Amino acid sequence: MLLSRLFVPITKDLPSDAKIKSHQLMLRSGMIRQSSAGIYSWLPLGFKIMKKIEQIVREEQNNIGAQEMLMPTIQSAEIWKESGRYKDYGDEMLRIKDRQGREMLYGPTNEELITEIFRSSVKSYKSLPQLLYHIQWKFRDEMRPRFGVMRCREFFMKDAYSFDLDEYSAKTSYNKMFFAYLKTFERLSLKAIPMAADTGPIGGDLSHEFIILADTGESKIYADKKIFEINLKKFEFSKSSLEDMRKEFSSFYAVTDEKFVKKDFDKKVSKANQIITTGIEVGHIFYFGDKYSKPLNCMIDSKEGKKTSIKMGSYGIGVSRLVGAIIEAKYLNNVMKWPKSISPYDVVIIPNISKNNIENLNKAEKVYNDLKKQNVDALLDDVDENMSAKFKKHDLLGIPYQIIIGSKSSGDKFEFKEVGEESQILKLNEIKDKLKK
Amino acid sequence: MLLSRLFVPITKDLPSDAKIKSHQLMLRSGMIRQSSAGIYSWLPLGFKIMKKIEQIVREEQNNIGAQEMLMPTIQSAEIWKESGRYKDYGDEMLRIKDRQGREMLYGPTNEELITEIFRSSVKSYKSLPQLLYHIQWKFRDEMRPRFGVMRCREFFMKDAYSFDLDEYSAKTSYNKMFFAYLKTFERLSLKAIPMAADTGPIGGDLSHEFIILADTGESKIYADKKIFEINLKKFEFSKSSLEDMRKEFSSFYAVTDEKFVKKDFDKKVSKANQIITTGIEVGHIFYFGDKYSKPLNCMIDSKEGKKTSIKMGSYGIGVSRLVGAIIEAKYLNNVMKWPKSISPYDVVIIPNISKNNIENLNKAEKVYNDLKKQNVDALLDDVDENMSAKFKKHDLLGIPYQIIIGSKSSGDKFEFKEVGEESQILKLNEIKDKLKK
Repeated sequence: MLLSRLFVPITKDLPSDAKIKSHQLMLRSGMIRQSSAGIYSWLPLGFKIMKKIEQIVREEQNNIGAQEMLMPTIQSAEIWKESGRYKDYGDEMLRIKDRQGREMLYGPTNEELITEIFRSSVKSYKSLPQLLYHIQWKFRDEMRPRFGVMRCREFFMKDAYSFDLDEYSAKTSYNKMFFAYLKTFERLSLKAIPMAADTGPIGGDLSHEFIILADTGESKIYADKKIFEINLKKFEFSKSSLEDMRKEFSSFYAVTDEKFVKKDFDKKVSKANQIITTGIEVGHIFYFGDKYSKPLNCMIDSKEGKKTSIKMGSYGIGVSRLVGAIIEAKYLNNVMKWPKSISPYDVVIIPNISKNNIENLNKAEKVYNDLKKQNVDALLDDVDENMSAKFKKHDLLGIPYQIIIGSKSSGDKFEFKEVGEESQILKLNEIKDKLKK
Repeated sequence: MLLSRLFVPITKDLPSDAKIKSHQLMLRSGMIRQSSAGIYSWLPLGFKIMKKIEQIVREEQNNIGAQEMLMPTIQSAEIWKESGRYKDYGDEMLRIKDRQGREMLYGPTNEELITEIFRSSVKSYKSLPQLLYHIQWKFRDEMRPRFGVMRCREFFMKDAYSFDLDEYSAKTSYNKMFFAYLKTFERLSLKAIPMAADTGPIGGDLSHEFIILADTGESKIYADKKIFEINLKKFEFSKSSLEDMRKEFSSFYAVTDEKFVKKDFDKKVSKANQIITTGIEVGHIFYFGDKYSKPLNCMIDSKEGKKTSIKMGSYGIGVSRLVGAIIEAKYLNNVMKWPKSISPYDVVIIPNISKNNIENLNKAEKVYNDLKKQNVDALLDDVDENMSAKFKKHDLLGIPYQIIIGSKSSGDKFEFKEVGEESQILKLNEIKDKLKK
């Protein structure tokens, strides 16, 4: 893609409410544009990044055997009355009356609707266990939407639901999701800590939050750094191995502010291993048994022919929120560096262009076409501005690799730079190898 | 995927309002489930098909240089007041008040919002032309939602918008979309006719509907069959060639009921070439100049430094509607056959299973694993029921190729059937070649 053709309205103007760095960066780099309070349009650059995150989330859900489907955004109030949450949800629920005067709402979550679908579709234990998920827009009418996509009203979320015959098997489903979440954050190059959590308005008796580390995070975190040394590869995809995995993660000290007790921390974690930092919640999983299946009468015939309520869990990842959270973790000293797995482009080519000399631009185009043939998704910065303006701009765009075509590039050798490292002079083939690694 | 694990609640029960065959098939084959009037959940089978259609639509948009982005579902009423359509839209617009009492709405289309984004982002003619699109859920509060996904309230649509400096260049953008639409429908194995159309509530002075042929279509069509002989490949992607393309399509007689004049039809089309059939509208494109850019004050500096309103067009394809429309076109004599490009699976393996003999199931599993290794996405029907029940079920699921493992399969040869054709006895390698073609 030529940067001059890309719809990326880079701007210096920031509204006064853009207080945190992810909100600022996303506006300045033309990733998003606010359309009303807490509601954003995703412009091509931001959209492409969010789609890549969505795809990683999807693949890791599929890898544990979850099936993708899609529930609508607008739901009937009826099922929420059945579960009792229509009242409980308060003003955060966006309530709507349609032209016939029927009570509808914009789904803030989907426990009720998925339970309704399940109860009318599945009758026998033979169809269990089942994991279903969807990635869909949700709406929570926040009193004070703020922090850009981190606390907005219309947000993009993956929510999964598990259906099991008994508690033991339900906890295996829970562990599978636990595993999928860790794999997902690993592929996003994030340090994530699963933390035992309260269940809040979703309810239930087992719950973990997944918190990623970021200097600017909203919650203070106290943890044992050995938790980051656990190698996911050693666990198999069996019930017992998944149980071992969750036990191992739970064995290390990791709490937020509210649960912090200094004495315990010092006792359980050696000084050298103590991490005190901040983090951002990006995922939350729940096991809640029959909290929804019972009031909604989602029953199944067991092997013995007995009717029993299905045991359920739900599992959320904030996909749009992750975009902001990753920026909070990776935007350091005014330089953004997207993880390779979700960078909007594999590499940016930056030629030094001047009015009377288009030689560098021609060279850049040759490199661009060459990379394109090898399926390298490159951005070519063909904009006519000086190099220092260009570098500032690319500090915002955050593409992790640059090919700089100026005085240091000559013949078949080019200046190649990984953001945050020293640049090197390399042949194009060597650059390709580095990009493909 | 094993059919016993797939969440596909096949059912015989049909609600009385399921009157057309696509609505019936989608409910019976477990593709969708109604959650309230005109609002559906897409279950895994239906979701997968819709996603494949979405991807083809996306690729053909990208191929003409359109850039993907995403606007939110909930919009502020303000911009609709600026354009004057807030009143015009009437009860079909789902109007919402948020907790602060602000007037919001669920977007039925996006001319206003995209114009607002463009006016605040682009100032110079150098950034033109520009094509932007998104694929997002829309809501129209139909008085009488019916026909399943064909006339529902919450629907999935690709809408694109073009921005140009003058009318001539805007019509080139229009022609590019015209081309992309024909390519899209070609890849979906549909016979589509572009038909000059009235502009309706979108407004403007140039418009085409794209109608696909289906025996059960809602509109009567009179056309010259030579329109289907135009080879898209002969047109280049240049202004003049695209103009020739649109002229050539326009040169053949093709009208709906309302514009039909028998005398003209007989004069312009030889008896042998006359087609009288029915069709379904699946796309609609518009050129409307400054209808929105003027009231919304979306101006640009021309080369001469003069402020001028941007010339715009908009271009819709109903993605969720297409799922139903394709069924109307391809579900014949109670047998569904998905076009290969969007079939939920490449092939289904159907072993004849009986309680005391699992030899066929074992064979089927071997074939399944073998195909999987070659990236063939197969469905294995491991459900314990008799073959005639299985075949009936697969008439609904519509996977176009079947490997039947029963009495006719022996050694390394298998019964292979393309739906609607005679079955053949082939080696697995020969089957693979057929599937990959």
